[in-house]
Amino acid sequence: MTKIKTVDYLVQELLKLGITDVFGLPGDYNFDIIEAVERNNETNWVGCTNELNAGYAADGYARIKGYGALITTYGVGELSAMNAIAGSYAESVPVVHIVGVPKTKDIKNNTLLHHNFASPDYYAFERAFSNVTAATAYLDETNAKEEIDRVLGVLINEKKPVYIAIPIDICSLEIENNSEINVQKSDEDNLNAALEHALDVLNKAKQPVIMADILIERFGALKEARSFIERSGYPVTTLLMGKGLIDFNYENFIGTYVGKFDNYNTYEYVNKSDCVITVGAILSDLNTFGFDLKFNPSDFIQIYGAYTVIENHRYDNVLMADILEKLSQNCPQKEFNLPERVYSFGKSKNPESKKLQSSYIYLRMQEFLRENDVIFSETGIVKFGMAPVRLPQGANLYNQVLWGSIGWATPAAFGAGIALRNNPEKRVVLITGEGSHQLTAQEISSIMRYNLKPVIIVLNNHGYTIERVLSKDPMDAFNDIAIWNYSKLPHVFKGDVWTAQASTEFEFDEVLKQAEDKQKTKMCYIEIFADKMDLPELAQRTIKNRLAGKPAIA
Amino acid sequence: MTKIKTVDYLVQELLKLGITDVFGLPGDYNFDIIEAVERNNETNWVGCTNELNAGYAADGYARIKGYGALITTYGVGELSAMNAIAGSYAESVPVVHIVGVPKTKDIKNNTLLHHNFASPDYYAFERAFSNVTAATAYLDETNAKEEIDRVLGVLINEKKPVYIAIPIDICSLEIENNSEINVQKSDEDNLNAALEHALDVLNKAKQPVIMADILIERFGALKEARSFIERSGYPVTTLLMGKGLIDFNYENFIGTYVGKFDNYNTYEYVNKSDCVITVGAILSDLNTFGFDLKFNPSDFIQIYGAYTVIENHRYDNVLMADILEKLSQNCPQKEFNLPERVYSFGKSKNPESKKLQSSYIYLRMQEFLRENDVIFSETGIVKFGMAPVRLPQGANLYNQVLWGSIGWATPAAFGAGIALRNNPEKRVVLITGEGSHQLTAQEISSIMRYNLKPVIIVLNNHGYTIERVLSKDPMDAFNDIAIWNYSKLPHVFKGDVWTAQASTEFEFDEVLKQAEDKQKTKMCYIEIFADKMDLPELAQRTIKNRLAGKPAIA
Repeated sequence: MTKIKTVDYLVQELLKLGITDVFGLPGDYNFDIIEAVERNNETNWVGCTNELNAGYAADGYARIKGYGALITTYGVGELSAMNAIAGSYAESVPVVHIVGVPKTKDIKNNTLLHHNFASPDYYAFERAFSNVTAATAYLDETNAKEEIDRVLGVLINEKKPVYIAIPIDICSLEIENNSEINVQKSDEDNLNAALEHALDVLNKAKQPVIMADILIERFGALKEARSFIERSGYPVTTLLMGKGLIDFNYENFIGTYVGKFDNYNTYEYVNKSDCVITVGAILSDLNTFGFDLKFNPSDFIQIYGAYTVIENHRYDNVLMADILEKLSQNCPQKEFNLPERVYSFGKSKNPESKKLQSSYIYLRMQEFLRENDVIFSETGIVKFGMAPVRLPQGANLYNQVLWGSIGWATPAAFGAGIALRNNPEKRVVLITGEGSHQLTAQEISSIMRYNLKPVIIVLNNHGYTIERVLSKDPMDAFNDIAIWNYSKLPHVFKGDVWTAQASTEFEFDEVLKQAEDKQKTKMCYIEIFADKMDLPELAQRTIKNRLAGKPAIA
Repeated sequence: MTKIKTVDYLVQELLKLGITDVFGLPGDYNFDIIEAVERNNETNWVGCTNELNAGYAADGYARIKGYGALITTYGVGELSAMNAIAGSYAESVPVVHIVGVPKTKDIKNNTLLHHNFASPDYYAFERAFSNVTAATAYLDETNAKEEIDRVLGVLINEKKPVYIAIPIDICSLEIENNSEINVQKSDEDNLNAALEHALDVLNKAKQPVIMADILIERFGALKEARSFIERSGYPVTTLLMGKGLIDFNYENFIGTYVGKFDNYNTYEYVNKSDCVITVGAILSDLNTFGFDLKFNPSDFIQIYGAYTVIENHRYDNVLMADILEKLSQNCPQKEFNLPERVYSFGKSKNPESKKLQSSYIYLRMQEFLRENDVIFSETGIVKFGMAPVRLPQGANLYNQVLWGSIGWATPAAFGAGIALRNNPEKRVVLITGEGSHQLTAQEISSIMRYNLKPVIIVLNNHGYTIERVLSKDPMDAFNDIAIWNYSKLPHVFKGDVWTAQASTEFEFDEVLKQAEDKQKTKMCYIEIFADKMDLPELAQRTIKNRLAGKPAIA
């Protein structure tokens, strides 16, 4: 058996998962890990401006490539990234968080080194991370190989973040170079039992409908899901997080599910169904638009990454791809009267000289989008604006509807840009409110440093609009923020950029036209202005519901 | 007994500790808490650009005013602040982290609301925080009053951060308005026993020396410590973290202890002492310059916040202020031959037209500083540059030598500025490397938003210089960072600012002269340039030690 250094082994195994780029910041406890990334000919180090942003970037990267990784330093670095890791955990984005920690000897002696507490506690940060990851490992001279294999197994099987702490001296520890990662397989008996049960339910059903959502993509079952959808011919909707998984022009697509607030035909069709098949669905407050489902999903068929629930019976060890494949081969055909597709979003109207408002912004955005675009939409107002947008073929909308951490979208779009830097046919489009943008805006400098060419649209509506709407007094000072001249920001950084501002419909129309061309060679950064209380119509409707005491929607 | 709303009670109790300003960001789970801060006539809400920065700001504020507080929202907000809270924990900075969480009903029902995991876990973040705080509380309808009192007691007694989660509905719960915070007192027997033991040791000692450090200030024992120092007449040194606690002109001050690397007379005097009295000392790798002490501090007298160790015997429940007061009244007088005070830092030399280097920068900084300045010095190269600087009377140097989180100093200086906004005689001076500055630079906009007038010096040396020195290849790409034109950054933000750049000694001298005047009316933001590998002399010497395999020094 050949031997290999622990860090080289780890990088090699990450590479097998498609991780060719690793994000993070250096620190004096993690140099050896970063050097391993640089040493491997097929992996690149991607320096970020801070660790939270590095975590978000790794998350954005993993949403595109399936897996992501970041390297931080002990204590100060790793803890700064915790919110990003927790978000990846919430939304099933498999990210490996690798932390460089002091030498084994110092850990054993409990030496008071920097980045520790005055009474040293070398395991405090691993314990903290155990609450926001699926597995943690703290390597030592006896367990390095086994622990790496174990946590990467969890990463692959659960599609959740894992945490690996590597003491300085363990980096160069020689271990056997034979990967023994335990990848989960379906239990054949459970799979067949689930299939039989599902077919029994489907045979009886008169109007089955498929509700597809984001975990299909995360669990790598997109091919199988599409096969099931097409071969069954069952009508299909998506939740907001899964928007874009199903082509808007697919004949049996009945539109995005946004509760009763829009696209009412879809709402009625789904809620009158006698068999809703949810596939990879996250049934959270915001993704269901205030739990606006008139049925109990577990009464029907719920397909998850590694288990399926049918009529409230849970079948464990049933992988999503396997059950979908079986279903696509066996599902009964049905006759359907599809609901009329009523999209509130038609073609963009002709621009006028009037002040820019949501009623124009998102219609015009819809027109701007093109095939295969990779769109990152920030939490807040823009989420509601983008929800009804019809996506062109192959375009995908990424958002963080469950975790909802403002600031995520900017560095996540950076991570996606790194993932796609050799795919010029895929354009990255970021749309963010300026309140969210402030939290992580320095990552714009990384986008420029790595010569990425996204189109970035920053909606400047003078504060936290979504919070104005939700708090007692919209004009309460806590909803105000520091005033920035956003379109000047990229000019602080080195790199090629085109910036613009737009306050009217005419101007927005014009800058988007220009951006189509400019984006071919450089980053485009567009600041657009809207009133403090200007809301997309979907937001107006849902917030009325919230303020009436219904469950949280923002 | 009068009743009061839970949040109003909490704000009232914070105010009793001198907390008149609370930092943070709004979120839809914490509006009611922020409104309580606004409702109280004596407390102000201070909005920040992100939660990590808010945590750092609260830390900087607490270093000045004794206590600090921040409010974040559930999950996404609180976790972003964790590194700041952990730093406050490491360095005994008492900060109250208040988190707005969903309604009790939703917690009990385990409802899948936003900012949670797909399988909700309402206590995951409190569990995570229990690893980096001295106490956590999760309020409910039965425990609100008692839990607030309990954790504020821990805050006061241990001078460490505490965490309080408040469900939305608990904010307005009426509780009894009678504070029952259990403030620790010395155990008289232990105090007297410790005193007797200490006097026994001191009577035998021929050359006692006092090593004063930062925890004196944190535990509010500065008056008692100075009294002990002056009445005993014992020679006194400070560690780096405690720099500024003792007036540089005090006759028995023997200079800052920086190991063998500078000020060698002090090093020899301390290490030849037969009785070192450490008071509030943090004996970490960097604060001791690589554990460069030739004695075991517990063999002598170690005075901590709530206990004292004498000849390896620990006396619990002995408060620092009490034992110092007793000692100042009873300590035996001694005769001393003070070491010659050899300061490597004399008067600044005349500026020349040559390129700016460390050899000029910090001498000139020393000249720039004036009485009562409040100086924040970032981790990295500047820490070494500032270590030998002689501080004017009443000036204090704040650094984060133990925790050492890069990025801390910028928002911490913002927090200090808020703490001092009604003290125009106290000027805030921030000196930071540009690598660190990038992590948290957006807080500059908050400094301008609140019309603060610090002098900010950003040392642009083209990357992470300290890491260049410590890593195998100084020019390794991971030590490079995105290139910014720092002096343009403040002009992105609204507010009055004076910016300047300096590349030569002449220029630096000139801009500092101008800043003295400009600072009276606005923030001064000065970008200075130095070579990638330019190091302060103290850094050169200590790093030589480190690279020879000695304990970590940066």
